[in-house]
Amino acid sequence: MPSETKTINRIKVKINGEDYYVRGKVSTEHIAKVAKYVDNKMCDLSRRHPDLNQLRVAVLAALNITDELLRLKQEYEEFLATFDDELKD
Amino acid sequence: MPSETKTINRIKVKINGEDYYVRGKVSTEHIAKVAKYVDNKMCDLSRRHPDLNQLRVAVLAALNITDELLRLKQEYEEFLATFDDELKD
Repeated sequence: MPSETKTINRIKVKINGEDYYVRGKVSTEHIAKVAKYVDNKMCDLSRRHPDLNQLRVAVLAALNITDELLRLKQEYEEFLATFDDELKD
Repeated sequence: MPSETKTINRIKVKINGEDYYVRGKVSTEHIAKVAKYVDNKMCDLSRRHPDLNQLRVAVLAALNITDELLRLKQEYEEFLATFDDELKD
């Protein structure tokens, strides 16, 4: 897990061609990694759907990333359940 | 994991007050769950930052969700690594 910092870090990032100032109580490296992930996703969606405006691209990116998050959560929970079952046997 | 369907399902959802048609090769229940997650996140961010426009809110939501995804990925990988180590002992 990215460890929390005592201070709030703030960096400037470019996401799908727009500048954003992003801040958080984590390292600037973690913030940059998160921003790069969203930038890649939005740039890819913009290329594949050039008719969509920036807002639709951002919402579609959020939907895609949420789909990944919920799938991973489910996979992790299923793995933990199997692991628990094995410990019981 | 949500199992893939043979057909593409398409539903209308409301995200932060706007209508979107979302489609995917998964159940309509899974699509609705994903959309609800993004809607909750964007509505919450809009309330907390009323000065931000819709695009900034959507990008901020995507950043927050990516942060959750990358943290969960790391936690899962660390757990798997510990699990592997225990099997080796």
